[in-house]
Amino acid sequence: MNPPRTLDWIGDTSGFLRLIDQTQLPTQLVYRDCKTVEEVWEAIKLMRVRGARHRHRGGDGRRRRFANLEGSIAEAFRARLRQVADYLGASRPTAVNLFWALERMQRRVADLLDREPPEHLVNVLLDEALAIEEEDRQMCRAIGRVGSALIREGDGVLTHCNAGGLATADYGTALAVMFTAAERGRRFHVFVDETRPLFQGARLTAWELQQRGIDATLICDSVAAQVMKEGRVQIVIVGADRIAANGDAANKIGTYGVAVLAQAHEIPFYVAAPSSTFDLSLAKGDSIPIEQRDPREVTHGFGKQTAPDGVKVYNPRSM
Amino acid sequence: MNPPRTLDWIGDTSGFLRLIDQTQLPTQLVYRDCKTVEEVWEAIKLMRVRGARHRHRGGDGRRRRFANLEGSIAEAFRARLRQVADYLGASRPTAVNLFWALERMQRRVADLLDREPPEHLVNVLLDEALAIEEEDRQMCRAIGRVGSALIREGDGVLTHCNAGGLATADYGTALAVMFTAAERGRRFHVFVDETRPLFQGARLTAWELQQRGIDATLICDSVAAQVMKEGRVQIVIVGADRIAANGDAANKIGTYGVAVLAQAHEIPFYVAAPSSTFDLSLAKGDSIPIEQRDPREVTHGFGKQTAPDGVKVYNPRSM
Repeated sequence: MNPPRTLDWIGDTSGFLRLIDQTQLPTQLVYRDCKTVEEVWEAIKLMRVRGARHRHRGGDGRRRRFANLEGSIAEAFRARLRQVADYLGASRPTAVNLFWALERMQRRVADLLDREPPEHLVNVLLDEALAIEEEDRQMCRAIGRVGSALIREGDGVLTHCNAGGLATADYGTALAVMFTAAERGRRFHVFVDETRPLFQGARLTAWELQQRGIDATLICDSVAAQVMKEGRVQIVIVGADRIAANGDAANKIGTYGVAVLAQAHEIPFYVAAPSSTFDLSLAKGDSIPIEQRDPREVTHGFGKQTAPDGVKVYNPRSM
Repeated sequence: MNPPRTLDWIGDTSGFLRLIDQTQLPTQLVYRDCKTVEEVWEAIKLMRVRGARHRHRGGDGRRRRFANLEGSIAEAFRARLRQVADYLGASRPTAVNLFWALERMQRRVADLLDREPPEHLVNVLLDEALAIEEEDRQMCRAIGRVGSALIREGDGVLTHCNAGGLATADYGTALAVMFTAAERGRRFHVFVDETRPLFQGARLTAWELQQRGIDATLICDSVAAQVMKEGRVQIVIVGADRIAANGDAANKIGTYGVAVLAQAHEIPFYVAAPSSTFDLSLAKGDSIPIEQRDPREVTHGFGKQTAPDGVKVYNPRSM
């Protein structure tokens, strides 16, 4: 099966970014075309597009705006480039890969600013973004190749949140391991934590596994301990939003609990992530920033109020 | 503050059972009057009334039907009594307290059946039900008195599901400990697991704590590990649906995971429950039956579909 592409650059430097609106999954497959930087910013902010790996594609949307800058002087280009990078960075201040990509894009043209015309710089930026995308694809495939041997015939695999194709340019990180194992004919079963508050496991991971015909069972997050106790989980594989220099990994809220439970049940726990997820400026995980998200994600889940008015909520998300 | 009564017998033997429809909380406080055995059965089945402790109040509704049996012979009364008990028992086959109460009600009149007229037997049954209610009230207060010393000034207390007044005749079990500690002037903070899939923590426990002015924060179930790691939880207190002879306790799904996490963080974990929750016929917890609940509780949570069509779901509930 060939699942739909999570995001796609359509056209040349005057083109636009087309992405799956992940807030509409799993009941509707809706594409959104982002033709301005503001639309890209909004897509990241509203989590229409998400995941540790492909936020650098936000860089794509940037090019569209640069295309309007033809004739500007180098200084204006440089200023605008920084302005746009800061703006996009503000859409998700805790996303390390977003900053990694924004920096890489700026670095790519830093030396060229004084000697190349803007129309050429825009082409360079587009090529760089497409190169990042291709590297991402290769990275996903490599993680799949390396990791797939970890899953044995008949295993129960547990995962939390979504580290699949919807979180990368292509194939995912944690899910790449499963996709590759399945392609190699391995049969196994995946337990998918629904991943409150935003249900990325239920909405996205369950959908991706289904798209690829992999046997999966959806569970509430609190059931992970139960299926471990029942001996139905032989391996846990998750993605990561950021990894500190000492190897501490941050991922969606709840991942730490799954890791502690896996240890208590003597189940191996793997983090599948590319090298760009490492943030060597952080000595250990305690320094990884945590953002507080909207309390309504918890109290007004999906369409109905489930908590009394005025209740306090703690809704952290480490990235 | 004097919170509304969870359930109330209104009138004499021709009376009826009035209960809070807990499926409407926390946004609406709706009472339902159950005037037939069928209405009581439905209230238990649909979880309008719930909790380990007060399912025996289902016995109340039974009396109404008996009031129509005046003039029946002892054998018909006995048969009807057994029939109604079996019927009510089928509303929640895993609820040990329900069966405990149904048996107690039958035992109470067993010796009287051949020598007392039905109208007297009905009175005896009503008195017995009211006695159970009063014992329940005393039990809640005793649990509160005994347990309240466990909570120290400034503690963070974590609980899962609802073991409060809404699950008993009066004051709760786990929450009785908190209510009593608060009445004694202790200040502490409660973290309330929302308790997927049915959100009893968010809907009921958060509401009850708010009604009594106790400082509480609602968290997704997967955040329990995080607040433990942050050093914000000094004690975990939960209720129990059933306790085996060796002390193994079954409670809402997710409780086992909380216990493992508490152990890993060296946080004391207490089960607050009355002696009627012990089921000495079970040697250990593995024998406690688990029911599979409707997958739609997970996939169609509260008003919106959050998982793809056709996804497999594992939705166990031990009682």
